[in-house]
Amino acid sequence: MDAPALEELLADVASGACTVDDAVRRLSRLPFADLGFARVDHHRALRQRIGETVYGPGKTPEQCARIVVELLGEPSGPVLLTRADPDQVKAATAAAAAAGFGATVTDSGAYATVSWRPRAERSRRVLVLTAGTADLPVADECRSVLEAMGFRPRLVADCGVAGLHRLLASVDELLDADAVVVVAGMEGALASLAGGITGAPIVAVPTSVGYGASLEGVTALLAMLASCAAGVSVVGIDNGFGAACAVARILA
Amino acid sequence: MDAPALEELLADVASGACTVDDAVRRLSRLPFADLGFARVDHHRALRQRIGETVYGPGKTPEQCARIVVELLGEPSGPVLLTRADPDQVKAATAAAAAAGFGATVTDSGAYATVSWRPRAERSRRVLVLTAGTADLPVADECRSVLEAMGFRPRLVADCGVAGLHRLLASVDELLDADAVVVVAGMEGALASLAGGITGAPIVAVPTSVGYGASLEGVTALLAMLASCAAGVSVVGIDNGFGAACAVARILA
Amino acid sequence: MDAPALEELLADVASGACTVDDAVRRLSRLPFADLGFARVDHHRALRQRIGETVYGPGKTPEQCARIVVELLGEPSGPVLLTRADPDQVKAATAAAAAAGFGATVTDSGAYATVSWRPRAERSRRVLVLTAGTADLPVADECRSVLEAMGFRPRLVADCGVAGLHRLLASVDELLDADAVVVVAGMEGALASLAGGITGAPIVAVPTSVGYGASLEGVTALLAMLASCAAGVSVVGIDNGFGAACAVARILA
Amino acid sequence: MDAPALEELLADVASGACTVDDAVRRLSRLPFADLGFARVDHHRALRQRIGETVYGPGKTPEQCARIVVELLGEPSGPVLLTRADPDQVKAATAAAAAAGFGATVTDSGAYATVSWRPRAERSRRVLVLTAGTADLPVADECRSVLEAMGFRPRLVADCGVAGLHRLLASVDELLDADAVVVVAGMEGALASLAGGITGAPIVAVPTSVGYGASLEGVTALLAMLASCAAGVSVVGIDNGFGAACAVARILA
Amino acid sequence: MDAPALEELLADVASGACTVDDAVRRLSRLPFADLGFARVDHHRALRQRIGETVYGPGKTPEQCARIVVELLGEPSGPVLLTRADPDQVKAATAAAAAAGFGATVTDSGAYATVSWRPRAERSRRVLVLTAGTADLPVADECRSVLEAMGFRPRLVADCGVAGLHRLLASVDELLDADAVVVVAGMEGALASLAGGITGAPIVAVPTSVGYGASLEGVTALLAMLASCAAGVSVVGIDNGFGAACAVARILA
Amino acid sequence: MDAPALEELLADVASGACTVDDAVRRLSRLPFADLGFARVDHHRALRQRIGETVYGPGKTPEQCARIVVELLGEPSGPVLLTRADPDQVKAATAAAAAAGFGATVTDSGAYATVSWRPRAERSRRVLVLTAGTADLPVADECRSVLEAMGFRPRLVADCGVAGLHRLLASVDELLDADAVVVVAGMEGALASLAGGITGAPIVAVPTSVGYGASLEGVTALLAMLASCAAGVSVVGIDNGFGAACAVARILA
Amino acid sequence: MDAPALEELLADVASGACTVDDAVRRLSRLPFADLGFARVDHHRALRQRIGETVYGPGKTPEQCARIVVELLGEPSGPVLLTRADPDQVKAATAAAAAAGFGATVTDSGAYATVSWRPRAERSRRVLVLTAGTADLPVADECRSVLEAMGFRPRLVADCGVAGLHRLLASVDELLDADAVVVVAGMEGALASLAGGITGAPIVAVPTSVGYGASLEGVTALLAMLASCAAGVSVVGIDNGFGAACAVARILA
Amino acid sequence: MDAPALEELLADVASGACTVDDAVRRLSRLPFADLGFARVDHHRALRQRIGETVYGPGKTPEQCARIVVELLGEPSGPVLLTRADPDQVKAATAAAAAAGFGATVTDSGAYATVSWRPRAERSRRVLVLTAGTADLPVADECRSVLEAMGFRPRLVADCGVAGLHRLLASVDELLDADAVVVVAGMEGALASLAGGITGAPIVAVPTSVGYGASLEGVTALLAMLASCAAGVSVVGIDNGFGAACAVARILA
Repeated sequence: MDAPALEELLADVASGACTVDDAVRRLSRLPFADLGFARVDHHRALRQRIGETVYGPGKTPEQCARIVVELLGEPSGPVLLTRADPDQVKAATAAAAAAGFGATVTDSGAYATVSWRPRAERSRRVLVLTAGTADLPVADECRSVLEAMGFRPRLVADCGVAGLHRLLASVDELLDADAVVVVAGMEGALASLAGGITGAPIVAVPTSVGYGASLEGVTALLAMLASCAAGVSVVGIDNGFGAACAVARILA
Repeated sequence: MDAPALEELLADVASGACTVDDAVRRLSRLPFADLGFARVDHHRALRQRIGETVYGPGKTPEQCARIVVELLGEPSGPVLLTRADPDQVKAATAAAAAAGFGATVTDSGAYATVSWRPRAERSRRVLVLTAGTADLPVADECRSVLEAMGFRPRLVADCGVAGLHRLLASVDELLDADAVVVVAGMEGALASLAGGITGAPIVAVPTSVGYGASLEGVTALLAMLASCAAGVSVVGIDNGFGAACAVARILA
Repeated sequence: MDAPALEELLADVASGACTVDDAVRRLSRLPFADLGFARVDHHRALRQRIGETVYGPGKTPEQCARIVVELLGEPSGPVLLTRADPDQVKAATAAAAAAGFGATVTDSGAYATVSWRPRAERSRRVLVLTAGTADLPVADECRSVLEAMGFRPRLVADCGVAGLHRLLASVDELLDADAVVVVAGMEGALASLAGGITGAPIVAVPTSVGYGASLEGVTALLAMLASCAAGVSVVGIDNGFGAACAVARILA
Repeated sequence: MDAPALEELLADVASGACTVDDAVRRLSRLPFADLGFARVDHHRALRQRIGETVYGPGKTPEQCARIVVELLGEPSGPVLLTRADPDQVKAATAAAAAAGFGATVTDSGAYATVSWRPRAERSRRVLVLTAGTADLPVADECRSVLEAMGFRPRLVADCGVAGLHRLLASVDELLDADAVVVVAGMEGALASLAGGITGAPIVAVPTSVGYGASLEGVTALLAMLASCAAGVSVVGIDNGFGAACAVARILA
Repeated sequence: MDAPALEELLADVASGACTVDDAVRRLSRLPFADLGFARVDHHRALRQRIGETVYGPGKTPEQCARIVVELLGEPSGPVLLTRADPDQVKAATAAAAAAGFGATVTDSGAYATVSWRPRAERSRRVLVLTAGTADLPVADECRSVLEAMGFRPRLVADCGVAGLHRLLASVDELLDADAVVVVAGMEGALASLAGGITGAPIVAVPTSVGYGASLEGVTALLAMLASCAAGVSVVGIDNGFGAACAVARILA
Repeated sequence: MDAPALEELLADVASGACTVDDAVRRLSRLPFADLGFARVDHHRALRQRIGETVYGPGKTPEQCARIVVELLGEPSGPVLLTRADPDQVKAATAAAAAAGFGATVTDSGAYATVSWRPRAERSRRVLVLTAGTADLPVADECRSVLEAMGFRPRLVADCGVAGLHRLLASVDELLDADAVVVVAGMEGALASLAGGITGAPIVAVPTSVGYGASLEGVTALLAMLASCAAGVSVVGIDNGFGAACAVARILA
Repeated sequence: MDAPALEELLADVASGACTVDDAVRRLSRLPFADLGFARVDHHRALRQRIGETVYGPGKTPEQCARIVVELLGEPSGPVLLTRADPDQVKAATAAAAAAGFGATVTDSGAYATVSWRPRAERSRRVLVLTAGTADLPVADECRSVLEAMGFRPRLVADCGVAGLHRLLASVDELLDADAVVVVAGMEGALASLAGGITGAPIVAVPTSVGYGASLEGVTALLAMLASCAAGVSVVGIDNGFGAACAVARILA
Repeated sequence: MDAPALEELLADVASGACTVDDAVRRLSRLPFADLGFARVDHHRALRQRIGETVYGPGKTPEQCARIVVELLGEPSGPVLLTRADPDQVKAATAAAAAAGFGATVTDSGAYATVSWRPRAERSRRVLVLTAGTADLPVADECRSVLEAMGFRPRLVADCGVAGLHRLLASVDELLDADAVVVVAGMEGALASLAGGITGAPIVAVPTSVGYGASLEGVTALLAMLASCAAGVSVVGIDNGFGAACAVARILA
C-alpha cells in the first residue's frame, strides 16, 4: 500500500464508499502478511517508495508466485521479481496473469527481471552508460527496474575509456542528466571519467566482466570506491537493480 | 569559475564593466593553471558544481598553500583542503588570509578539514547519522564539507543497532530528510536499518572503527554494499568528504 | 554410548542381566571402532553429549552406510548424516532400515540431513530466525539437527532488517527464547538487531545468500563477528549443523 | 535500569515510598539519555542483561567520563569501560569516584578494562583457557568482564597443543565447566581440542598472537570457525569482552 | 637416467657390453628431449632423486602418452603421471604397455595417479595420517607416489582432534616413524597435535575438505603454517604428491 | 582506418581517384560507428596502432559478427576476435567470409582466437617462453595475436625452473630477442630467471595453471610483480592477448 | 663491466696498453665479488644493460657503502642506491667520494635515490605522467633512475581523470613519446586513459596514494592490470625504479 | 629432561647414586611445571628432540626470565629465547647467569635470539641460502637456532635469481648438503631454483623483504608453496626458527 492508495482508502471511508470495518480489515494487514516461508512487506512502498522486490535465487517457483500474487493483492506500486530463472518466471507470470496482471519480462541471458503494474511515466532524465557490450545484461536489469518505476532511461552502450571519443560524443547527455548510472567491469575507469565531466549524481555499478585481474568484479568495485572523482557512490557487483533503486531514491 | 561567476563576467562585458581584453585574459586561464607540481582545475566548479578540493596527504605545506591561493584567485565557489596536518593548515590559512580569505577549520583529531568562501545557505535537509561516538571524526569531516557547500546538516550521533530505540526516536527526521548520510563502523548495520525505514537517498560511509573482525573498515564496507535495503549506495572507508560530495550531487 | 546407556549397562551387570564377559566385550570397543577408512568414535556422545555425526562430502555411499550402522550398533543417542547427496541418503537409510532403524530425512535442495534415533523431547525454547526466504535451507538443516536432539525449535522466516516491523512483530518470542539462532546472508545485520533486543544466547549463522558484495557469505560472517551487539557468537558459513550443536551445548 | 531495579521502583510506588510523579520522571528517561555525542542506553541492562559498555577508542577522556557517570546515575547493573587508555581511565575513575563509585581496573598492557558496581557473585563455573602466555592480556579482559558480571572464572594459562599433556592435566575442570572460553592465537587448535573433550559450551576467542602466517589473528579466527569439533562458536579477534558477554548470555 | 643407471652404462662401456659410440649417443640426450610441446627432463632423477613427473591438467592425452613413453625410454627410476583424467590414463597406460611397461593406477575419485617402474622397496617407516575419511583421496595420491618410490607407508585414517583418543591410540606409530605426513582439512589442527607428540619430520598437507570457513583449504594451509608445534613444514593444498616428494628428499 | 589507409585516402583525393564528397563521407564516420549495442572504434588503429579487438565473452554470436564486419568495412589493419566460443567463431567467420575476408582460427581448447587481414611480416624477433606444457593455450593466444600483427614469434615451451638446463639451452635466443614474453603459472619464477639473463624487454604473463597455492594465477601474478629482476613488467592472468599488445607497442 | 668497457679492455690488450695478466685479473673477477654479506654482480650490466642496483632497506649503511664502492671499482655503467635512508645516503656518498665519484641524490621524502656515473644522454623521449601531486615521490624515483641511464624524461604532474582536460592538454606529448610511464594511485584510471590515446609503450606504476578503498595501492594495481586499454603493462606498487628499468629495456 | 638425561637418572638409581625417592620427586615434575602464567613443558625435549622454546613477544621480561631458569633447572638440551627485545634479553641472561648458565645472543636488528646450553656439535651439513642481503636477519635467527642444536650451518648470502651465476657458483655445496634452508623475500624464486638443482630436503622460509607486490612476505610464501620444484616444503614468513626446527627433525 503506497501513499496514494492509503489516501484513496481514507477518502473512500470519508465518502462512505468503504465501510469502516473494511478499512480496518485492510489496514490490519499492515505491516506484513506471513506466508510461513516469507513475511511479505506491504508497508514498504509507503515507507521507501520502492515496494518490496522478490529476489529469485533460493526460492521455489511456487514461493515466487505466491509472494508476487500477495503483493499484487494490495493496491500499491510496481511489483518486481529479479534474478529469476525460467521456472520462476513461468510460475510467477502465470499466477499473476490468473489474477489479472500482465508482466514485462526482461531477459538478460543468465536471469530475467519481471515487473508488474509499472508506475506512471516520470520526466526526470536518467542516463545509463556501459563501458562495453558485455556489460549490457547488468544495464538491462537496471533499465527494466527503472522503467517499472516510471523512468525512461537513455542507454549509451560501449563508451569505455579505451576509446575516449566515444564517451565525449555523449557529453551533452551527461551534462543534462538528472542522474547517471555507470555500468563497467574490468578497471571500472568509466565512473571516474563520467564523474569528472558531470555534476549530476553518479551511481556506479561494477560488473564481473573481464579477466586477467578483474577478480569477478572486485577490481572494478574497489576502483569505483577509490575514484578520484568526488561524490561517486557505488553499489554491489552486477547489482543493476540496486543502482535503479538508488536512482529512484535520488529522483523521488 | 562556477556558473554564476561566468554569467556575471559575461554581464560585465555586456555592460562595459569589464573590457573584452580582460574577459579574454580571464577566460584564457581555462581550463587549468599549471603550477608545475599541480594542474589546478579552475573549470571543475562549473562542470561538477563542487569545485576542486585539495587533498592534503603527500603534498608539502607550501604546495597546499599555493594551490589554495590559486583556486581562491578565481571568483568561484568554496575551496576546500581535506585531511590536512597542522603544518598544512597553518601554511594554507596564512597564505589565504594574506589574500583576504578567512578559513573555517574543523579538527577531527587525526586531520583537519579547512574551507574558504562557503556557498550561500541552502534549504534542503541533510541528516547525518553515526552508529557510535567513535564515528564522529568522519561525520565531522562530512558535516564541514556540507557546510562549505551551503547545507546545514543535522547530526544524530550514537544511534547504532545495539540499542534500536535510539534510532527509532529519530524516525521522523529520517522520513523528512532529503538525503541521509550513515556513518558506521564495525558491521555497519545502521545503513541497512536506515535504508529500510526511509525512502530518502542513503549515502553510506563505512568507518575504520572497531576491532575483532572489522578489518579496518572493510567489513563495514562490504556489509553496506551487500545491504538488503535496496538502493543504499556507498563511498570509501572513512570518506566523509566523498559522502558530502555525493549529497551535493544529489541535492544540486 | 552415552551416559544413560553406560549406567544401564552397569545396572544390568549388577542385576545379572548382563554377564561380566559381555560387559567387557562391549566396553572394550571403547573408544572407537576402526573401519579402516574411519575411526568411529563411540565415546563422543558420552563426552560431548552430541554424538558423532557423519559428514557426507568426500565419502562414498557405502562408507556412509557402514559408519551409520556402526554408530547405531551401540545403544547411544541420535545419529546424524549431514550434507548428504541422494546416493548417500539412499545407501544409509537402506542399511539402517535393515538394522531396524527408521530415518528422518530433511531435504534442503542442495543436500539432505538424515537422523536416526532422536532424543526425547526437551522443553527449552529455541528460536530460529532467518533474514530471508533464501536462507531457509540452512535454517532447515539447523532445525532438523535440533529436532534430532529433542528440541522443538520455532522458526520465524524472512524477518530481515529491510522491513524492521517484521522482526518487531516477534519481539516477545525473542525475549522468551532460551537460545536464538540467527540465519542471515547479505550483510547479516539481523544478528546485531536480535542481539540488541534480547539477552538470550545468540548463535549467528552467516549464509552464502546474496550477491554484489556478499562474497559467498564472507561478508555476513565478518559482519556478525564485528557485531556491535555484545556477546553474539558465530559459526561458519551455511553451518546450520554447527549452530544446532552450539545450542545443544548451551542448553545441555 | 535492570529488571530488579524496575521492580523495586514499582514496589516503591505501590508502597508510597516513591511518588507517581517521581516514577514518571524516572521512567521518562527511558530508553536513553542524549548527551549530544552519545545516546546512552539506560534500557540495555533490562533488555540484554549485560548493560551498556563504554568502548574507549575514538572517545575523548571527557566523553568516557560523562557516559560512565550517566550510566552510574541509574540504579542498574555493572558499568564497564573497555580498551581504555591511561587518560580515559584517569578521567573516568575520577569522575565516578566523585559520584561515589569505586572502580576495578585491569591493565592488560596495551589497554585497560575498568568496571564499577559489580554484580553479586554467581555460582556457575567458567573456565578460561589460553594456549600461551602471550594470550593473557585477552584472557584478562575476558576475566575482568566476567568478574564484573559476578562470575569467578578459573584461568588455566599456557596449555596449547604443542604440549598436549598440559591440557590433559585439566580435563576434569573441562568436563565440570558450565562454559569454557578458549583464548588462542597462531593456529588456534586449542578450541578444537577442548571442544572434542567437553560437551560444555565453548566460546573461542582468536588472538593476534603469533607470526609467520598468523595474519594478525585471521588464521586463528578462520581455524576456529572451521573447527571439526561440532558446536564451537567464535567471537572476533582479541575480543575477550565479547566472549565474556557470550558467556553471560549462556549462563543468565 | 638416475645414478645407478649411469653407473651401469659406464660399467657396460668398460666391459665392452656397450660401445663408446652408443654411450655417447645415449649421454648426448642429456639434459632433455625436446618434443616441441615439452622439454622432457631426463636429467632430473640424477639431480633430484625423484624423476620428472607428468602433471596431467592442461595436457592432451596424446601429450601425456608421448612424455611418459619418452621418460620410460631411458633406464631410470619411476615415472609418474598425476592428476590424470580417464582419457589421459587410458592413453598413457596404453602407450606404455605397448612399450612393455605395466602401470599402477590409483583412482582418487576426481583424478588418478599412475606410476610405472617402481623403485625397489625401502625400509624407512613413513606414517600417513588423515583427519577424516574425506581426506583419503589426497592421502591416496601421497601413498601411491610414496609406493612408486619404494616406500611402504602406513595409513591411519580419520584420527582428527575432535576425538583425540583416536590419535592417541597410534602414539607408538607416531614415535617410531621416520617421517610423518599429516593430511587434514577444516582447521588442520592434527598437524600441530602430531608435531607436539613426535620429533619426527612432519610434512603437513592441507586439504580443501570442509565448509563454513574452510575457504577451499586456505584455512588449513594458514593454520598449519602458523602451527605452534615447532618445525612442522607445509606443502600446498591437496598436494599429496608434493608431500610424498618432500618425504623422498628427507629419507633419501 | 590506420595511418597508411588515411594517407592513401588523401592521395586518392589529390589524384582525383576519390571525390571530396566520398572522402568526407568516409571521414565523417570517425571516430566510431554506433551499432546500438556497441560503439565500434574505427579510430583506434590510427591512434594505438593495434586496432579494436572484439572480446567475445558476454556478446551474442550476432553481435560479434556485426562488429567484425563493421571493422572489416574500413581499410585498416588486422581485426581480432578473442576468447570466442564455437558459436561466436562460426557466426563471425561466416559473416566475414560473406564480406570476402578469410580468417585464421587458433583454438586453445577453452576458447579461440580469430584474426582477419593480418599485417605484413615484420622482422623484429619475439621469443615466447612457457614454463610448462599446460601454459600453451595462453601462449597460443599470444602467438596468434602477434602473428596477426605481422610478427613471427619463436616459441620455446616447457623450460621452467625445475629443470634449469632446459632454459639455459635457449640462452642465445634470449640474448638475441627484441622482446620476450614469459608465460608461467604456479610460482612464475621463470620471469625472474629470464629477466636476470637478458636485457631485452620482458612481458610476463601469469597463468592460472597449478594447484596447491596457485590461487588461480594470483600467486604467479604477485610473484612476477615482486620479481627481483629489475624492469620486468606484467599483464593480467592468462592474458596472452594483452602481452602481445604490449609487445606490439614496444616494437612499433 | 658493461659491453663498451669490455670492448675497451680488449682493445687495450691488443694495443699493449693493458697487459694480458692485468686483463686476466680483471676478467677473473667475473661474474661476482663475494663480500660475505653480498655477492656483487659485476656481470649484470653486460647481461641486462642496467647494472646492479643496491636496494637500501635491510642493509646497514656500511654494507651499502661497501657494495657501492665495489661496483664503482669496475669500469661499467651507472651505479644506483635506491630507497635509501639518510644514514645510508651519507655512508655511501662519503665512501664513493673518497673513491673519486660524485653522487646525484634525489630525496623523495620517505627515501632517497642516489646515482653515480650516469650514462651519456640518450635521445629517446620518455614521458612520465602523474595523476596527482601526491604521486610525485614515486615519479621522482622513476625520473632519477631514468636520468642515471641517460634519458631526459619529461614530467607532467597532476593530470588525473577527474579533470580530463588537464591530460588532453598534453595529447601531443603522449602521441610523440617513445615510452610513457603512468604513475597513479586511487583507482589508477589514468593508465587506461593514456593507453587509449597513444600507441606508445605504457608502463603503469600503481601508487599507495589514496584512502577509502585504495588498500595501500592494491586497488590501483589491480585496476591497471585489468585495464581495458590493450597492451598496458604494470610494475609493483610505488615501484618507480622498476618502471624506469622497464623503459630502459624497451628503449635499449 | 631429554632422553640421555632420563637414562642417566635411571642408571643413577640402579647404581645407588640417586635414591628412589629423589628419582620419584624428579620424575613427578613431569610433564610440566605450572608457573601460573605458563605451564613449562619439561617433557618436550624427550618427546620432540627440540626442547621448549620461549617465544618472547607478549611476555614480560620477568616471565621470560622465570621460564628460562625453570627450563635450565632440568638436565636437558638447549634452551632458547626467540624474538626477544632488549629488556627480555637482559632479564633472561641475568637470571640464567645467576644460575650459572652463559648465553649466546644473536642480535638480528629487530629482535634477538638467545640460547643456553648448546648441544654437542653434529656432523650433518646444513646449507642456508639467502636471496639478498636484506634476508640476513631471518637467516641469522635460523643459523643461531641450528647452532644451539649442534649444527654448523654454512651460509651463502645474496645468491638470488637476478644473477643466476651467483647461485651456480655454489652448486657443489647444494649437491653435498644434507638439508638446505632457502631464505628469500620478493617472489621467492630461489626456493624453486635450489629445489630444481638438488635432491636434498629443502625448507623454504619466505621473508617480508621487498615492496611493490611483496605483501609483507605473502607473495613469497604463496610462491614457495606453489613451487614447480617437487618436494619443497615451507614454513611461515620470517620464521627462521621454524626452519631450523624442521631441519632438526629431518637430521635427528
